[in-house]
Amino acid sequence: MPVLLDQLRRAVGADHVLTEGDLTAYEQDWRQRARGKALAVVRPASTDQVAAVVRACAAAGASIVPQGGNTGLAVGSVPDASGRQVLLSLRRLDQVRAVDPANLTITVEAGCILQNVQAAAESAGFLFPLSLAAEGSCTLGGNLAANAGGTQVLRYGNARELCLGLEVVTAQGEVWDGLSGLRKDNTGYDLRDLFIGSEGTLGVITAATMKLYPQPAARLTAWAAVPSMQAAVDLLGLAHRHLGAGLTGFEVMNQFALSLVARHYPQQRVPLWQDTPWCVLLENSDHESEAHARALFERLLEAALASGCVTDAVVAESLSQAQALWHIRESIPLAQAEEGLNIKHDISLPVSRIPAFVAETDALLAANVPGVRLVDFGHLGDGNLHYNVQAPEGQDAAAFLRTQEDRINTLVFDAVARHGGSISAEHGIGSLKAAKLPHYKSPVALQMMRAIKHALDPKDIMNPGRVLAAPRGHE
Amino acid sequence: MPVLLDQLRRAVGADHVLTEGDLTAYEQDWRQRARGKALAVVRPASTDQVAAVVRACAAAGASIVPQGGNTGLAVGSVPDASGRQVLLSLRRLDQVRAVDPANLTITVEAGCILQNVQAAAESAGFLFPLSLAAEGSCTLGGNLAANAGGTQVLRYGNARELCLGLEVVTAQGEVWDGLSGLRKDNTGYDLRDLFIGSEGTLGVITAATMKLYPQPAARLTAWAAVPSMQAAVDLLGLAHRHLGAGLTGFEVMNQFALSLVARHYPQQRVPLWQDTPWCVLLENSDHESEAHARALFERLLEAALASGCVTDAVVAESLSQAQALWHIRESIPLAQAEEGLNIKHDISLPVSRIPAFVAETDALLAANVPGVRLVDFGHLGDGNLHYNVQAPEGQDAAAFLRTQEDRINTLVFDAVARHGGSISAEHGIGSLKAAKLPHYKSPVALQMMRAIKHALDPKDIMNPGRVLAAPRGHE
Repeated sequence: MPVLLDQLRRAVGADHVLTEGDLTAYEQDWRQRARGKALAVVRPASTDQVAAVVRACAAAGASIVPQGGNTGLAVGSVPDASGRQVLLSLRRLDQVRAVDPANLTITVEAGCILQNVQAAAESAGFLFPLSLAAEGSCTLGGNLAANAGGTQVLRYGNARELCLGLEVVTAQGEVWDGLSGLRKDNTGYDLRDLFIGSEGTLGVITAATMKLYPQPAARLTAWAAVPSMQAAVDLLGLAHRHLGAGLTGFEVMNQFALSLVARHYPQQRVPLWQDTPWCVLLENSDHESEAHARALFERLLEAALASGCVTDAVVAESLSQAQALWHIRESIPLAQAEEGLNIKHDISLPVSRIPAFVAETDALLAANVPGVRLVDFGHLGDGNLHYNVQAPEGQDAAAFLRTQEDRINTLVFDAVARHGGSISAEHGIGSLKAAKLPHYKSPVALQMMRAIKHALDPKDIMNPGRVLAAPRGHE
Repeated sequence: MPVLLDQLRRAVGADHVLTEGDLTAYEQDWRQRARGKALAVVRPASTDQVAAVVRACAAAGASIVPQGGNTGLAVGSVPDASGRQVLLSLRRLDQVRAVDPANLTITVEAGCILQNVQAAAESAGFLFPLSLAAEGSCTLGGNLAANAGGTQVLRYGNARELCLGLEVVTAQGEVWDGLSGLRKDNTGYDLRDLFIGSEGTLGVITAATMKLYPQPAARLTAWAAVPSMQAAVDLLGLAHRHLGAGLTGFEVMNQFALSLVARHYPQQRVPLWQDTPWCVLLENSDHESEAHARALFERLLEAALASGCVTDAVVAESLSQAQALWHIRESIPLAQAEEGLNIKHDISLPVSRIPAFVAETDALLAANVPGVRLVDFGHLGDGNLHYNVQAPEGQDAAAFLRTQEDRINTLVFDAVARHGGSISAEHGIGSLKAAKLPHYKSPVALQMMRAIKHALDPKDIMNPGRVLAAPRGHE
């Protein structure tokens, strides 16, 4: 290993091979679920340096854990406890390489902070729509490796749909320049989408060409009380018809989730929640004007009130009101934390199955876990629910999690499977869910995944054990 | 082989294993560029039958050529001349399995004719936007295998972007049920997009779940004269800003292309073409009303006339006028055929590079091929040009192609490569371009493609030689 360390120092400079001092920021995931120990933290500054690092590791048989902002929720980007894995930080690859206004593309390096990508797009007069809670510290490379979702997926898609091309260092340390700014290119297998979402297990994403969009002229927000989850689904259908591609947000929140915000953040004035089981936050991005957006919203809400799928509604009167409504939605996880430890599920279902799933699973948990309190909210427009469980009122939450978390996970994931859903909508698998995956994924799909992993990374040096649990010997 | 034929007859019924009679429709591509001879044409009626066919072929070491409507342009779906390949026709898998209005999805079998998918969507009140010239005879499975493009890509994406999930029979004859109707699912590698665009070389697509969209309230068409290709690109930027997601079509046509329509179809009244080097056809799909669409178009065209990127324009006054404008655009390939044999290129480039590419390549061809006549048209909004070459006036076109086609292809493809483009935007590689691919694709990408092919189809029985030319021995 001293030989490898020397090679790494030659590749990136001695100052950027960290083996001593406090490496917590690299070795621990931000939810503090896992703490590992790296052989070294290596911080290359260019694609060629990344390639040199990978070649050195491959020659030494050392495995590599790529890391961006280390904000992932599935423990996919921290080293294990062996002290033998190389932590490859992409943070110094942080340049915006090009903005192409006529082609509506931006090319950035993997370590670029998401907020900086948004800012670079905005200063060129465009929208880069990927947006999520960690945007101030997550990196675009990590967003692509995990196929991040967020709040604008309904209109613009996940990170995958926003990407036109990648630059990747392969597990052999070769550079694939696939930085295409092309919207059509049918010359062989879709390697781009194979690397996107593979969580660093097939190679290292070093740069990407992403789509830009025109800035909308106005963004307007409405808040509606709906009498049932089915009514929320009906409202979604109406909103698609009335707003078309203008519908950029559709978030649902149950009464208990909003009661936690009202309890822990009383200065936030949550509208309409006390008399309705569900509220919906809608966003309309209009390329004409705020007045036009308002007129469309009013027409939609009139139709929804007439049909009964909405019982009451407000439209934000100003940008600050709109931000306040979004802030309520974004405060739910924080209010949950204030309430105490809880169990999180990031699941997706066909939108049409959500009312039945929620009714059935709510009843199942109530029957099996006396006093259970469900915090149910999420991106209904994408079929993505954060179906979370709070300990019963007055119980010791830590003790509740210790005794109930596994059982509740199984109850929820089995219900998801019965309704044709996914146990990880936007957070990925990492090491946190790698052992669960074989229970919920088709064996034929898993077999193909393993074959692809072995084909592209035969030495199993790229983020081993993440996504695919350690195999029993190589096939 | 008699053993295999018996097994195939047991799998699908003797009536659906064709070995005699006129099999031209299966054995010849529709542009009549290649004619092969199949061991048998096999017509399964279910996914299980497809799996049985693949297992029988795998056991016998016989290779399989999957085929849908056999309308491809790259000779990817007809057997070779050996008489040893099994032609697997998917046409009898033609059911619409489900329409899910709340989830905005439709699940159909691979052999379903594209027009029938559109019709099923429409009768449920929705739009299925994939649309292309062969829609009356091509199948959805073929569209996915080739990642088809067409006229609505600008807004809705290629076949890939419209697909949420696949059912696939693997090269081992196993069934992968990946028919997800989920918009978010981060549970492992993106197998869906790997099969899409792989042209039958990795497995057989047997069904798919596709996205539906609300029907627009109105579709309006405009026709503009623009003074240069740069002006067309500027107009595209203006149109994105003014119409947002309403911009569903942006087609460019050069004067010579339109002159051929005027010459061979004088009953079609081509507007504005005589005094301008380029015309543009724009389509605005509006979810409000025709009046709203018209107001937006008028505002856009005023701005474009003021900025000088448009010199004259007309907006269709009726649906029949709109159809007539689209008909002119669609008549260009037919007018080319009337004019005589010609050389076709289906290329894509970053939109920003197209003015320089066209200027440079026009000059290059003029200098190298005296009297050359360029028919240049295509989906400018996607960066996709059909940059075609007509023989010089008065020359024998067949002789011209015989002596010049290879040379002209090389001139054009090399220019495409210099500008960061693709030699196959929407038609694929098939066998027609498989030998060319290594000249224009990164060796690192090709090596990964070969590794994936070998991992998923180690016996090389799935459509061998298409996309990837026959390797010199297995790696």
